[in-house]
Amino acid sequence: MPHDSKKTPASPDNPEHALSNEQVDAQMKLIKRGIAELINEEDLRAKIARGKPLRVKVGFDPTAPDLHLGHSVILHKMRQLQQLGHQIVFLIGDFTGLIGDPSGRSETRPALTEEQVLANAETYKKQVFKILDAEKTRVLFNSSWHGRMNFAEVIRLASRYTVARILERDDFAKRFRNNLPIAVHELLYPLAQGYDSVTLKTDIELGGTDQTFNLLVGRHLQAQYGLEAQCVITLPLLEGLDGVKKMSKSLGNYIGIDEPAAQIFGKVMSVSDELMWRYFELLSTKSMEEINLLRAEVEAGRAHPKTVKESLAFELAARYHDETRAAEARRDFNAVFTDGGVPEDAPVYACAEGAASAPLAFLSATGLAASRGEARRLIAQKALSVNGKLCEDALRPLLKGDYVIKLGKIRFLKLTVQAPQSIA
Amino acid sequence: MPHDSKKTPASPDNPEHALSNEQVDAQMKLIKRGIAELINEEDLRAKIARGKPLRVKVGFDPTAPDLHLGHSVILHKMRQLQQLGHQIVFLIGDFTGLIGDPSGRSETRPALTEEQVLANAETYKKQVFKILDAEKTRVLFNSSWHGRMNFAEVIRLASRYTVARILERDDFAKRFRNNLPIAVHELLYPLAQGYDSVTLKTDIELGGTDQTFNLLVGRHLQAQYGLEAQCVITLPLLEGLDGVKKMSKSLGNYIGIDEPAAQIFGKVMSVSDELMWRYFELLSTKSMEEINLLRAEVEAGRAHPKTVKESLAFELAARYHDETRAAEARRDFNAVFTDGGVPEDAPVYACAEGAASAPLAFLSATGLAASRGEARRLIAQKALSVNGKLCEDALRPLLKGDYVIKLGKIRFLKLTVQAPQSIA
Repeated sequence: MPHDSKKTPASPDNPEHALSNEQVDAQMKLIKRGIAELINEEDLRAKIARGKPLRVKVGFDPTAPDLHLGHSVILHKMRQLQQLGHQIVFLIGDFTGLIGDPSGRSETRPALTEEQVLANAETYKKQVFKILDAEKTRVLFNSSWHGRMNFAEVIRLASRYTVARILERDDFAKRFRNNLPIAVHELLYPLAQGYDSVTLKTDIELGGTDQTFNLLVGRHLQAQYGLEAQCVITLPLLEGLDGVKKMSKSLGNYIGIDEPAAQIFGKVMSVSDELMWRYFELLSTKSMEEINLLRAEVEAGRAHPKTVKESLAFELAARYHDETRAAEARRDFNAVFTDGGVPEDAPVYACAEGAASAPLAFLSATGLAASRGEARRLIAQKALSVNGKLCEDALRPLLKGDYVIKLGKIRFLKLTVQAPQSIA
Repeated sequence: MPHDSKKTPASPDNPEHALSNEQVDAQMKLIKRGIAELINEEDLRAKIARGKPLRVKVGFDPTAPDLHLGHSVILHKMRQLQQLGHQIVFLIGDFTGLIGDPSGRSETRPALTEEQVLANAETYKKQVFKILDAEKTRVLFNSSWHGRMNFAEVIRLASRYTVARILERDDFAKRFRNNLPIAVHELLYPLAQGYDSVTLKTDIELGGTDQTFNLLVGRHLQAQYGLEAQCVITLPLLEGLDGVKKMSKSLGNYIGIDEPAAQIFGKVMSVSDELMWRYFELLSTKSMEEINLLRAEVEAGRAHPKTVKESLAFELAARYHDETRAAEARRDFNAVFTDGGVPEDAPVYACAEGAASAPLAFLSATGLAASRGEARRLIAQKALSVNGKLCEDALRPLLKGDYVIKLGKIRFLKLTVQAPQSIA
C-alpha cells in the first residue's frame, strides 16, 4: 500500500506539541522585555513554536564573582526563560581561566587552580540562586570539553572562521588599525566560546551588548557544524546609581547582590526618579502593564515618586534577603531620614567611602553647594551639620553609613556612604 | 680555600672542544656555498666554534614524494653538513597531512592515513639515501609531538606570536589586502612548524627561499621558549632545464632522481652552457676551486663546453645509479647524436612528450625555425627530417626518446623527449 503523504503530512517537530501563534506571541513578549537585541525574531519564533524546552546558555567568568544588580539583569532574563519552561545552562568559562595569561604579560591574570574554580562556582551559586531556580539550572564548566580537545580538533575548529571576520570585532579592529599587538591565541578565544554552543547544541545564548560578536560566532559555528543556529539575545548594560555610567564595582556606583538589606534599600532610594523606571523595567518582576500604570500615576501627580521608589527598593531588598529584612530596612531608612525634620523630598545621594565621601566632594557633586568655593566658604562659616552635629573638616571623608546633611538653614541631603570601593 | 676564578675561567661550552678561527672559517666556507641566505653569520660562527655537532632540521612534505634535482639542492647541503659532523634530522611534517584540508574546500588534499605516511616515508628514504648517509640521519615525524598537544598547549604556543606579524608573510599579506579569506587555522601552521624547532632544540634549519618566513618563526619561538635561537639557511630554487623557470614536475623541466641513467645524462646535456655552471655549483661534489678552474679553461677556449657538461652529466647519472650505468648512458648518448653526421655543437633540447614535442612547437621554441610560420612552411616543403626520416606532420607529438632533428640542409637539433608531464 503506497504511503499517502497528503493524509499524514511529515513534520520533524512533533506537531502535537506545537504552540499556537498566540502562545508564541505571549512568550516573545516576555522574552523581548528590556533586551537590547534579538538575532533573530523569526528563528526564535520557529524554535518556540515547536513547544519543546529550548536550551539556553549563558557564559560566566570563572574569576572570583561578586555580583551586583548590573549582572542581575541577565539573571532575570534567565529566570524568565526558566519560568517559560526552558532549560538553563549556567556555563562557567573556566577553560581560559585555568590557562591564565599565557603571554605572561598580565600579572593580574594568573592561572586559577581547579580548587579556585570550584570555590568560585560555589560563590556564584550562592548568589545566582537567589534569582534562578537551582533545581532547573545546570551548572557546567567548559574545561570539561575544551580540556579534552587536541591540536587536530583545534585546527578543524579554527578552519571554520576567517581571520578577517574575527578582526572585525570592535576591540580587535581598533588594535589592528593602531598597530597594537594581537597575539594569535586571542583569536582562538571567541572560537572556543562559540564551540561551547556547538557542544551544547544551544538554542539561545544570552549576553551583554559587549558580547554580541562572540555570541554570533557561536551562531556561525553551529551552522558550520551542521547544527541549527542558536538565537542571540543581548541585554543592555544597567546604568549605575549615578544614572550615567554603567554599573561597575570599580566605579563605586553599584548595588551588590550580597549587600545587607539596608544598603540595597538605601541605594535604590538614592537613584533619580527617571532612572527608577529603567530599574523597574530591567529588575522588577512587576509586569510592564503594572509598571506603565505606576508611571502614569506619578506623572499625573496621583502618586509620589518616593513611594513608588520605596516599593522597588523593598522588592529588591526582599529578593536578596526576605520581606522581614526588607521591611526593617524601610523602617530604618525612614527613621534616619525623618530625624531632624528633614523634608520628605530632600535629595538622596550615595557615594563610596573615600575621596567622594569628603564634605567638599559630595556638597559640590550633588549641587547642594553651587561650587567647591561656596562649599569651602560655608563650612568655614560653620554652616555644615552632619546628623545634627557641626562639621568643620571639608576634607575628612565620612565613614560608611547613612547621614542627614544640612547646609545653611534650608539645604538638606540624605547621604549614604557605602563601603570603600575596590578598584579592579 | 677560595675558588680562584681567574685561574680556571668558567666556560659553559667545554673549551677543550672549541674550534680555531681557521677551522670555523673552513666550515663556514663550505656551508655558505650556493646558499641564498644565512641568518645570521655571527650566530652560526658561535655555534660552530663550540666544536660540538649541531642539530640540523629540514622539513619535508608528507605527500607522495617524487624528488627531482631541484629538491636535491637542499639534500646536498644536508650531506655537506653531515660530512662536517653535524646531526641531520629529516623531519616529515605529517601532522598537517594527517588532518588534510579541514575546511573541506580542497578536494585534492584529503587526509592521509598513517599507512600512507609510512609508505611515503619509505619512498623518501629510497631516494634521499642516494645522497644522505642513512646511518647518520634521523627520520622523525612531527605528528609524534603535535598529536599529543592539547588545546591549552596550543593556546600557549599561539600566545607567542602576533597576528600582524604572521600576516606579513607574503602570501597572507596579498590575500589579506585583496580580501581573500584566510582561515584562522592557517595561522597555526607556521607556528606548528616553528614549534618543531622548539621540540627538537634545532641549531640550524634549512629550507627553500620560499620558506624563509616559516623558518624565522622557528627562530623566534625558540627564543620565546628560552632556547638558543636556530640559524636559518635558505637554498635557492634550482632553475629547470629551460634555464628560466624553477625546476618543477608540473612544468616538465625537471630531472627526476629516480629516472634511468640515460635520461639523467641526456637531460643534463640539454641544459645551456651558462646554466651548466649553476648546476655545477649547486649539484656537483667538485670543490668550487675545481669548478672555477674548469670555467676558466672553457672561457679561455682550452676546454670544450660539451666535454665539461659530459663530466657533470656523468657525475649525476653515477650518483643516482653507478659509474657503469653512467658510462653506458654516455656511450649511448653519443651514439645517437653522432649518427647522421650531426655537428658536435648542434643545439641540444629537451621537452616533455605532448604539445611541446610536436615539430611546430619545438622548432619555434628552440629558434631552429625563425617563427611558427616559417616552421610550417618548411615542413610543407618536406624540409624536416626526424632521425633521418621525412616528417610531414607539424602537429603530431614525437614520443619519448632521443632524436636528431634536421631542418633544411644545415639546421640540426639534438632533441630529447621525456615522459609526459603530470600537472600536479
